Amino acid sequence: MREIHPQDLEDIAVGAAILGTGGGGDPYIGKLLARGAIEANAPVKMISLEELPDDAKVVTCGAMGAPTILIEKIPSGEEMLMALRHYEDVTGETVTALMPFEAGGLNSCLPIVLAAQTGLPLIDADGMGRAFPQLEMETFNVYGVKAAPVALADERGNLAMVEADDAAKAEFLARGLCIRMGGQVCLVNYPMDGATAKRVSVPATMSLAQDIGRVLREAKREKKALLPTLIDFLSTTHYGYAKLLGSGKISDIERKVENGWSVGVVTIVPFDDSEPYKIRIQNENLLLEQSGEILAVVPDLICVLDIDTVEAIPTERLRYGQRVDILGIRVPEIMRTPEALAVFGPGAFGIDADYVALGGA
Amino acid sequence: MREIHPQDLEDIAVGAAILGTGGGGDPYIGKLLARGAIEANAPVKMISLEELPDDAKVVTCGAMGAPTILIEKIPSGEEMLMALRHYEDVTGETVTALMPFEAGGLNSCLPIVLAAQTGLPLIDADGMGRAFPQLEMETFNVYGVKAAPVALADERGNLAMVEADDAAKAEFLARGLCIRMGGQVCLVNYPMDGATAKRVSVPATMSLAQDIGRVLREAKREKKALLPTLIDFLSTTHYGYAKLLGSGKISDIERKVENGWSVGVVTIVPFDDSEPYKIRIQNENLLLEQSGEILAVVPDLICVLDIDTVEAIPTERLRYGQRVDILGIRVPEIMRTPEALAVFGPGAFGIDADYVALGGA
Repeated sequence: MREIHPQDLEDIAVGAAILGTGGGGDPYIGKLLARGAIEANAPVKMISLEELPDDAKVVTCGAMGAPTILIEKIPSGEEMLMALRHYEDVTGETVTALMPFEAGGLNSCLPIVLAAQTGLPLIDADGMGRAFPQLEMETFNVYGVKAAPVALADERGNLAMVEADDAAKAEFLARGLCIRMGGQVCLVNYPMDGATAKRVSVPATMSLAQDIGRVLREAKREKKALLPTLIDFLSTTHYGYAKLLGSGKISDIERKVENGWSVGVVTIVPFDDSEPYKIRIQNENLLLEQSGEILAVVPDLICVLDIDTVEAIPTERLRYGQRVDILGIRVPEIMRTPEALAVFGPGAFGIDADYVALGGA
Repeated sequence: MREIHPQDLEDIAVGAAILGTGGGGDPYIGKLLARGAIEANAPVKMISLEELPDDAKVVTCGAMGAPTILIEKIPSGEEMLMALRHYEDVTGETVTALMPFEAGGLNSCLPIVLAAQTGLPLIDADGMGRAFPQLEMETFNVYGVKAAPVALADERGNLAMVEADDAAKAEFLARGLCIRMGGQVCLVNYPMDGATAKRVSVPATMSLAQDIGRVLREAKREKKALLPTLIDFLSTTHYGYAKLLGSGKISDIERKVENGWSVGVVTIVPFDDSEPYKIRIQNENLLLEQSGEILAVVPDLICVLDIDTVEAIPTERLRYGQRVDILGIRVPEIMRTPEALAVFGPGAFGIDADYVALGGA
């Protein structure tokens, strides 16, 4: 068991931004909300999957929407709690443990808010091992957990529930509500017991975020080279492999809100003036290409980092002239099975390419 | 108390089509579903508002969507029951009486289906006194009943609930779900007790539909002039006034599905070749104009009737060359108060005109 104190949130936010792989929402607001909630209540107890009782009643939680909208439509901090209470009211269940449904960005921080508000333990795991743009793109779904009931709440107190057998249908219906709730809502979904959670979750992703932040903070203090230190550290984790895929200057961004997502293409010109890199975006960075050759593709992480600070730049903050490193991180084994690739591999995003794991499998 | 038997459904469908004022969905499918449900179960008990116990737990029910979609996306007949059971599961309430939320078209028939399936009494009343395209356009809402929780079900068994304080917000969120459920769904909403139902409902609209059908059937048998007989009959009801507003041939129809509604304009050329009539549509007929002069406007009913049979032609069945009479029917007093006109008068549809009741108030 780890406790999450306000001083831990800086590290978590740094690591969450990297795991967000461009998406998951800017963790800045989530960090502030988490700090406020912990200070108003108590430190959050974070437990590992091993520490979770088999009969625990788990729900997963986080925000849904387009990160670009989050810049102006700021959560009140009460939506997660409203969604949880609505879930409990409607189902008659009492939840005993919380898990982020997504690792990365805002969605690593909002579950901390809810855990602080409720006193419930937060499970050090999630269902994406990174950020993905759609609710069915979860190891929970891959390994047989139903997404519904999905409880939604917006910052004005509007509530909704969706019940569907199929996770992609639940996503589609919830997304329709999300759009009409202003493009950004909080939700509670994927109810499961503790034994199931152990089987279907990507482990230790909250602590990974925190450890990434800590490693970078210490490297800064010790004036070590940041990116090599990060890459070395990641190779020691259950993710196991990371690599600098390219560097350059952002020369163009196409980006719009479409069907409730931020979608677009970013062009990055290498410093040696070789062929530009192109990154395809749907909330998250999905595909990195150069001269038509795929350098990295979902589910592996493609992280655009400020070249000086190694801070991750979320897709909604990308702009012309930024100098960036492009870091690739291989996802853990549980996310690379054929069943998993069917749900969140290249084909699930309409990308006509086979997945080849970074660094080989 | 009246009982609704299969042989009553023909009359109800004829009257419901007229009260639908072009919308509410073609009652043909609803009539077949109601016949099947009554034959499989028992006749439906229809009670007046006076017969309703004050402590009854009432919900209202019906279908939401674009009538054009209904032509191809046919209800399974189980959606109403799924929506009701979902409502009861989620709220923990046990419903004791049902009311249509809309008079007219499919939505006069579907509550009969649900009443037959459940054995619950059907209240002879509704919240629109006609068909309207939006959920907040209800006397229930006008006189202070909350629309939510709204329970929705589609023919594939997908379920949802919406909770919002404001009826227009509930409509907006439910419409978003409706669109993603394929443009046509069933729902249960406006929970209230019996005492409230007596205060806020448009009375005796189911029996009015049946009586309209009966009067026309008898007039046909007796070879009376149909339209004058209908107009005379309506003047004896609580609606109190009806008038032939024009006759002609449909010369043009603009119609599309937009934001989940069928919207458009119908042009009808009078037989004397004077200036054409224009009818503006949003699922229902909203406004009748000639040479820029308003001849009738919401909430009064504008009914396009086949000139020979006096059968109402729903907006999705209008086509070039049909010869029609345009019948106006004044709505009852409860629908003409300033509060009511604020919710479903001309301004609520973006029509820049004052409401002037047909035949004077």
